[in-house]
Formats: sequence, structure tokens, C-alpha cells
Amino acid sequence: MKAKLVTEFIGTFFLYLIISLSALAGFAADLAPIAIGLGLTAIVFASGFRSKAHFNPAVTVAFFATKNQPAKESLFYCIVVIAGAVLAAYAALIIAPTPLQAIIDNSTGFQHSESFQLIPAIFSEFLFTFALVWVILNVALAKGTAGNGFYGIAIGFVVATGAFSVGSISGASFNPAVNVGLLIHQVIDLKLFAIYTVTQIFAGLVASFIFNSIEPKK
Amino acid sequence: MKAKLVTEFIGTFFLYLIISLSALAGFAADLAPIAIGLGLTAIVFASGFRSKAHFNPAVTVAFFATKNQPAKESLFYCIVVIAGAVLAAYAALIIAPTPLQAIIDNSTGFQHSESFQLIPAIFSEFLFTFALVWVILNVALAKGTAGNGFYGIAIGFVVATGAFSVGSISGASFNPAVNVGLLIHQVIDLKLFAIYTVTQIFAGLVASFIFNSIEPKK
Amino acid sequence: MKAKLVTEFIGTFFLYLIISLSALAGFAADLAPIAIGLGLTAIVFASGFRSKAHFNPAVTVAFFATKNQPAKESLFYCIVVIAGAVLAAYAALIIAPTPLQAIIDNSTGFQHSESFQLIPAIFSEFLFTFALVWVILNVALAKGTAGNGFYGIAIGFVVATGAFSVGSISGASFNPAVNVGLLIHQVIDLKLFAIYTVTQIFAGLVASFIFNSIEPKK
Amino acid sequence: MKAKLVTEFIGTFFLYLIISLSALAGFAADLAPIAIGLGLTAIVFASGFRSKAHFNPAVTVAFFATKNQPAKESLFYCIVVIAGAVLAAYAALIIAPTPLQAIIDNSTGFQHSESFQLIPAIFSEFLFTFALVWVILNVALAKGTAGNGFYGIAIGFVVATGAFSVGSISGASFNPAVNVGLLIHQVIDLKLFAIYTVTQIFAGLVASFIFNSIEPKK
Repeated sequence: MKAKLVTEFIGTFFLYLIISLSALAGFAADLAPIAIGLGLTAIVFASGFRSKAHFNPAVTVAFFATKNQPAKESLFYCIVVIAGAVLAAYAALIIAPTPLQAIIDNSTGFQHSESFQLIPAIFSEFLFTFALVWVILNVALAKGTAGNGFYGIAIGFVVATGAFSVGSISGASFNPAVNVGLLIHQVIDLKLFAIYTVTQIFAGLVASFIFNSIEPKK
Repeated sequence: MKAKLVTEFIGTFFLYLIISLSALAGFAADLAPIAIGLGLTAIVFASGFRSKAHFNPAVTVAFFATKNQPAKESLFYCIVVIAGAVLAAYAALIIAPTPLQAIIDNSTGFQHSESFQLIPAIFSEFLFTFALVWVILNVALAKGTAGNGFYGIAIGFVVATGAFSVGSISGASFNPAVNVGLLIHQVIDLKLFAIYTVTQIFAGLVASFIFNSIEPKK
Repeated sequence: MKAKLVTEFIGTFFLYLIISLSALAGFAADLAPIAIGLGLTAIVFASGFRSKAHFNPAVTVAFFATKNQPAKESLFYCIVVIAGAVLAAYAALIIAPTPLQAIIDNSTGFQHSESFQLIPAIFSEFLFTFALVWVILNVALAKGTAGNGFYGIAIGFVVATGAFSVGSISGASFNPAVNVGLLIHQVIDLKLFAIYTVTQIFAGLVASFIFNSIEPKK
Repeated sequence: MKAKLVTEFIGTFFLYLIISLSALAGFAADLAPIAIGLGLTAIVFASGFRSKAHFNPAVTVAFFATKNQPAKESLFYCIVVIAGAVLAAYAALIIAPTPLQAIIDNSTGFQHSESFQLIPAIFSEFLFTFALVWVILNVALAKGTAGNGFYGIAIGFVVATGAFSVGSISGASFNPAVNVGLLIHQVIDLKLFAIYTVTQIFAGLVASFIFNSIEPKK
């Protein structure tokens, strides 16, 4: 299990590092969804064969719910991916202190924008977390795609399209570990953190329920 | 067939959701063709092994015409992909009510722009729907590419390049199910809906006729 | 050979159609290299298994020079890809008459810009046509990549990076068939057409000479 | 070994040529990370099967440290990739003399910008060189990905995401051979060259140490 946990930690560290630098600090400007999508594609290809490249507790819960991961390993996955996101949040503050500290000091994070609306945000997080988990289950667990060489692209690109589609509505987290980073950078508050986390885990469970209903039994 | 229909429904739902948010609502601005191309790539990779990932009645008609899909299944495919697009059109109105309702209320949809010209638009829809169906037949049905791992990229990228090339001319639908969504969002009217749909199905049939003439018989 | 020629014709038709609409007519603006790269990736994946997806006489000459294509087939390849580019040039004029006719009428094509300089342009065409043919030979003919599923990406992406790197210097043709289209659209004149064509074929021959010197004999 | 060295030379030549034209000369503007990422993807796919596509002494040192490359070959790799970058630096000056000479003459290179800060720059080079080498080791040496067809994408995309994330902080070199090019173009001075080179090689060694600790022994 050590190899899996090291892989999950490193992967989620870089996922949130890329998100915070390219999107929050604004270094990739309007191209942030591409920066994140390409980065995630690369890390997933480098990690999938060891750990299935969750980097996301909503995915881990979906794997657990579909009986594709034992409880103890699922728990450890959740712990290390959150640790990776936390460490990345502080690493980003070292690399880009000015823009990130400005967000924290002036409460200019996503949730504080005037255009923020709760219902569209929750609905966006639900739909695109569903899409993310649906894609992952089909490219990482389905019999019909066993041994495929495109899982990194499928996972990286679905996050990119989600960031393009609802980035301005919900901030495009789709991931409770990312929520933790966004909380540290004060882009979302504790209440929205809780709402997003519940929504994302629920979306993952809905995706795994539908997946189970159409995937042939082993 | 249940697995196929569920997969087609979910895929087309997200295809039109991404189109309406990134392109119509303008959330991806000039990058909308990339947002749509990456999203379609991801969903096709997650779906192709179950349903061949049509998400498009022009593709279904082409499969039927090349005797690669029975009549009844073809019909059900058309029904569920249209249902997916319709549901997505209303989901997009919940997520992005302001920009989408403005298009509907003020008749600022694509067809109403001053630069719209019918003949170039129809010719564009014909050529790029032909290209889309040509690519799909070659990566999803041809003997020579059986078992390939690039079909999602080929299909997603041909739609992206079409959207870049003729998005400003025809709106870049290439898909009768997308036409339905565009009709609900009042980007096109019923007459153009009919013209586009006939053109796209005809383009798919031309592509399948040429495909059949060069593909070795089974 | 019919299947090969049909495939080469359709592929080159769409290659030049995408170039003229996204880059010349300006519909993809600064993203034209991406539009072209994604489009070429898709078409190559749909065509490579039938015709090796040359779409380019410089590639055909390189295949002929490395004894990977007989003389007669090479000649027919050159004829149909030029025919495809010619037809695409006129199709583009139907779709986008205003911007393309303006280039023709006002001599505002690439070569007429004040910043155009011949030596850097020729050197750019040499280097990136070399890169293109080098990539194609290695992903389409080398023993070590036989049966790979990435040739479309390698070929599409090397053209995209060339268009980003020297698009403003040489116009980024890298392809005698594209030269023909550019001549019709009066972006280059007959003299530059000849210089580019000789340069590109020479670059392809240099690439195939180096390729032959390191590739194990069959 | 000749085939390997020719491949490494050509690959690194084009890598630095693309970097200097798209990013330094500014021809790809904000899209430079994409231009570089797509170009690297293409060259790696065309080269990986022959030489493992290092193009980077930090990668070569990591291969040597993990006992995956003999000392003599490692040394020759470093020599030819540096030679490739040097030649590319001068080729770029022929293609784009005006913008590149302006950087040299006016000391407007990256390091001379007012916003440059040493600690964030070093930390950025450390983290993303680690990510690059981590990805390469996992897609080019790990048992679990043997024979995969995605290594070019993984390597090209991790460099693209790094360029998006820290391009404005460190210049996004991640590669001692690129440092040499940047030194010739006077974007960095000799002192920063030394600091970056040590940092990158150290990052590669840390990545290979962690890789070795989780990769099953042969």
C-alpha cells in the first residue's frame, strides 16, 4: 500500500499546486482549465497503474461503494490526498505569495464575488463531479476498457471541460481535497466547504450506482 | 440495450451541457471549441466501448445505413440522445440563467446575427458533419482500426476543429440532437432546425456511402 | 489503391479547408495552430491505417526515397493531395468569401506583409518540414513504433508547434499541397511557391536520409 | 548508440528551438506553454522508442542514478543534448533576430524583470523538475507502464502545465540543456544558470530516489 499512498500524495500535491498557481494566482489566466487538464492528464498517466489515480475523496468513496476498494485503504487514500492538497496550498503561498495573500487578505476569493449564487454552484458541482466519477469508473474499472492507454486523457480532459463550463459559476472544484485547499486559500468558507463536499460525494455515489447498474458483474 | 441507452443519454446530456455553457453562455469565450473538444474526447472514451458513443442521430443513421446497427436500436438511440440534449438545455438554464435567457429574450442567437448567410452555413454543416461521420466510421467501425485506443481523441478533435473553422458561419452544430438544444435556446428557428437536420443526415449518408465503397467487406 | 487515394484526397481537402478557414480567414484567430493541429490529429487517426496519411507531397517523396512507396503510387498520391487542396481552396471561398476575397483583392497575403523576410522564411520551412517528416517516418515507418496508437497525435502536434513557432515568419506551410492552396488564395506568389516547394522536398529528403542511417534494415 | 545520440540531438534541438521562438521571441504569446507542450509530445513520441527521449541532463542523471543507463552513455547524452540546445539557440537567432537580439541587447530577459525573486524561482524549478522526472520515470521505466502508448503525452503535458504554473516565476526551464540556451540568449546569467542546474539535477535525484523506493525490483 506504500506505493499507492506515495503516488496519491504526490499526485494530489501537484494537482492542487497547479490549480492554485494557474487559476487562483491567475498565472494561466483564461487558459487555467487547459493548464489543469494537461497537468492532471500527465499525473494520472504517471500514477494510474499504481494507485488508480484518485487524487479525490469523492472518487475513493465511489470505489469503496462499488466494492472496488477495501475500507482501510479508502480511508488512507482520503488522508493522504488531503495532506497533499494542504501541503500544496502552503507551497503555492511560497511560490506566489503576492496574488494568493491578496485573495486571503481582501476576501476576493471566488465565493465572495457578487455574481456567486448558491443553487447554480451546487448544481454545477453535482453535475461535473458526476461526470468526473462517471468517466473514471468507466476508464479505470469497467471490464470493457481494461488495459486501455487513454485513461489519463479522459480524466484530465473531463476536468478541463468542467472548469471551462462552470468555473465562473462554482469555481470548478469537483473534489473534496481541492475544497480543503480552497478553504486554506479562503476562496470558500467552511459552510460552502461542507456543502460542496457533501454534494461531490453524493454525485460520486450516484455515478457509481448507475455504473453498477449497467456494468456486467465480475 | 439498457447499458447502451443509459450511456448515450448521459453522453449527449453532457455534450450539450458543455456546448451551451462554454459556447452559448460564453463561459469559455474564444476557447469554447477547445472546451467542447476536450469534453467530447473524455465522454467518448468513457462511452465508446459500451455504445460506440454516437451522441448524434446523423451518426446513428450512418451506422444504420452501413448495416452496423439494427433499426429498432437506431430508433431508441435517436430518442435518448434527443432526450439528453433537451434535459441539458434546461439544466444549462438553471446553471446560467442570465446569459442564456438573454439570448432567448432578445433574439440574439446565432441565426439572428447580421453576418448570418444561409448557403455558407448549410455548406459548412454539410462538410464538417461529413468529416465527423467519416472520422467516426473509420475509428469505430473500420477493420483496420479495430481495438484502437484513440477513437475519443479523433472524434473530440474533429468537432473542435470544425467549431474553430465554421463556428462563426453555421454555429457548428453537426448534430441533429444539438439542433434540438439550439432550438430550445432559440439560437436557431424551426426552419433552420429542419434545414440543418436534413443536411447533417445527408452528410452522414454520403460519408457512409464512401466509407462502404472503400472498406473491405466483412 | 482506390481506398488510399480516396483517403488522401479527403484528408488533404479537410487539412487545407481547416487551414484556410481558421488561419487565413482568421476564424480561429491566435488559436489557429491549435485548430489545425487538432484537425490534423483527427484526420490522421481516421486515415493512417489505410494510406499512412501523407496529405503532403514532401512526405510522399520521403517515402519514395526510403523505398517505402512505389513510384506510380507516389505519383498518384501527389496528384490527389494537390487536387484535394485545390478543391478545398474553392470550398473555403464559398464558406468565407469576404475575408478570403479581401486577401486576394488587396494583396494582404502573408508574403506581402512588411515584416516578411526570405531567408528566415526558407530556413523556417526547412526546419519544420524536416521535423514533420522526421516525426512521420518515426511513427509511421519505424520498426520500433509498429502498431502504435499515437501517430495521429505526433503528426498533428508537430504541425501545431511549427505553426506557433514560425507562423509569423514563413506562414507555416511545410507542405507543397498547402503551397498550392496558398497560391490560389494569393497568400504567396509563384516564385515563393517554387522556393517553398523545393525547400520542403529537400527537407523531407534530408529527414529520410538521416532516418535511413539510424533505422535498422528490414 | 549512434541512433540514440542522433535522436537526442535532433529532439533537444527542436525542443529549444520551439521554446526560444514561441516563448522568448513571443510568437505564441500566452499560448507558449501549449506550443511547447504539443511540440515536446510530438518529438517524444517520435524518439522515445530509440533513446527514451531524455532531451534533458536532469533526466539522464536520474536514469544513471537508478542504474538504468551506463555512465559512458549518460555522458554522451549530456553532451549531445547540450549541443542540440546550443545549435537551436543560434538557429533561433537566424529565424527571429529582432526580438531575440533585443532581449540580449537590452537585458530584458526573464531574470532581469523587476518581479523576479530568487527563492520562489528555485522552489518552482525544484518542484516542476521533480514532477517532470517523476512522470518520465513512471512512464518510461516503470514495469507497470511497459509498452504504453501515452508516454509522449505525459511528458509533453507535464512540461506545459509547469510552464503555465511557474513560467512567470522561474521562466520554467526544468532542464539544464534549456538553461544553456537561456544563457546564450542572456535570459539568465551564469550564476542563475549554476543555481538552476544544481536545483534541477537535485530534483531529478529526489524523484529517482522516491521512484526506486516504490518501484518493484526487477
